[in-house]
Amino acid sequence: MTNAQTERAVVLLSGGLDSATALAMARARGLDCYALSFDYGQRHDAELNAARRVAEHAGVIEHRIVSLPGLGAIGDSALTDRSIDVPSEGLKEGIPVTYVPARNTLFLAFALAWAEVLGARHIFIGVNAVDYSGYPDCRPEFIEAFNRMANLATKAAVEGATMEIHTPLIHLSKADIIRQGVRLGVDYGLTVSCYAADPEGRACGVCDSCRLRAAGFREAEVSDPTRYAPTGE
Amino acid sequence: MTNAQTERAVVLLSGGLDSATALAMARARGLDCYALSFDYGQRHDAELNAARRVAEHAGVIEHRIVSLPGLGAIGDSALTDRSIDVPSEGLKEGIPVTYVPARNTLFLAFALAWAEVLGARHIFIGVNAVDYSGYPDCRPEFIEAFNRMANLATKAAVEGATMEIHTPLIHLSKADIIRQGVRLGVDYGLTVSCYAADPEGRACGVCDSCRLRAAGFREAEVSDPTRYAPTGE
Repeated sequence: MTNAQTERAVVLLSGGLDSATALAMARARGLDCYALSFDYGQRHDAELNAARRVAEHAGVIEHRIVSLPGLGAIGDSALTDRSIDVPSEGLKEGIPVTYVPARNTLFLAFALAWAEVLGARHIFIGVNAVDYSGYPDCRPEFIEAFNRMANLATKAAVEGATMEIHTPLIHLSKADIIRQGVRLGVDYGLTVSCYAADPEGRACGVCDSCRLRAAGFREAEVSDPTRYAPTGE
Repeated sequence: MTNAQTERAVVLLSGGLDSATALAMARARGLDCYALSFDYGQRHDAELNAARRVAEHAGVIEHRIVSLPGLGAIGDSALTDRSIDVPSEGLKEGIPVTYVPARNTLFLAFALAWAEVLGARHIFIGVNAVDYSGYPDCRPEFIEAFNRMANLATKAAVEGATMEIHTPLIHLSKADIIRQGVRLGVDYGLTVSCYAADPEGRACGVCDSCRLRAAGFREAEVSDPTRYAPTGE
């Protein structure tokens, strides 16, 4: 902390378990948090509604939802393209079809723009290289390269400010993430991780994300607050 | 060229003189060009109308305009914020108020996403470090850092493809850009560079961009096809 004023952080918030935990960790460091979510043609509003609940519960200064109709138009993913089925047969090798092209590059670019406007020097993103190693833009080397680029991209950087991209979950298992979050008071009942949640935010229980999440609660020996849709059981 | 099929390039196209020239240079290399423009709450539609005319004239395969209402909401610039006056007293030291936070980071991120979907390995951006040295995200070191990041960001990169960000104008003077474009058949009468063009696309003649452009035509000894608004003279 370089001055008496509380420092600001932009926190990418999807409404899922991971980003809710990353937000709690940023708050625990005493940062004033500005949550940033995206409406990019997700299959359901459950995720954004969860992001709203999580942001309010965490006491963020401001929560912005950036509308990205363009990403849906460009996209080529089961998360935005309704003609591709969300897989439900468990995890496979390689890059999942739920990968969205350049998604974290785009999300971090918006976070960088907002951080510059706010004078924030911290960006938090809840990426994880353990359970989601299939996503290229969740790897530490990608984040480091983005951080280097960010420190050349902005007016603030030219004027000497440094931007730090924080990935507090990157090497944690799902169980460890849950343990951290429980310790910091995260209410995981507010979050939605499911790729195919119903309009009320109830999880399918069979997609990759549901499987990882449920296994995490079991391994952490924490009671799973997830609401499952009747057909998903 | 690694195979018989023509390679694809995504070309960022603003409708101004520089990006029209970069597009012509990509076409001259025999690439199939996909033009990408953004509607981010510019002060006028003249720029996007110019982009449409330039794309058509250059024979692109496809021209997409991505709507970015979010950038206007986040923005903090004379180009998107109508409460900040566009300067008209000539160039000054430092970073212009017309700088848009993280703009080229965002534009390149969208280009990267579309390139991945298209299987394109080339992105062209008409940045220039000579006349616009005030913009941090027009510097060669920024572009190089983005390129390194891009080669870690995508599924294509993981699978061994390399992405190349081309900046064919980066070290050219405005006059040299114009000479190149004229040689390649660019019709600069279709382009709009003015920060404050009127609804018909006529230039003000006094903003930084107009001054640089007019000086470029004079220095290149090329007749200036720019249409100026009556009050701008």
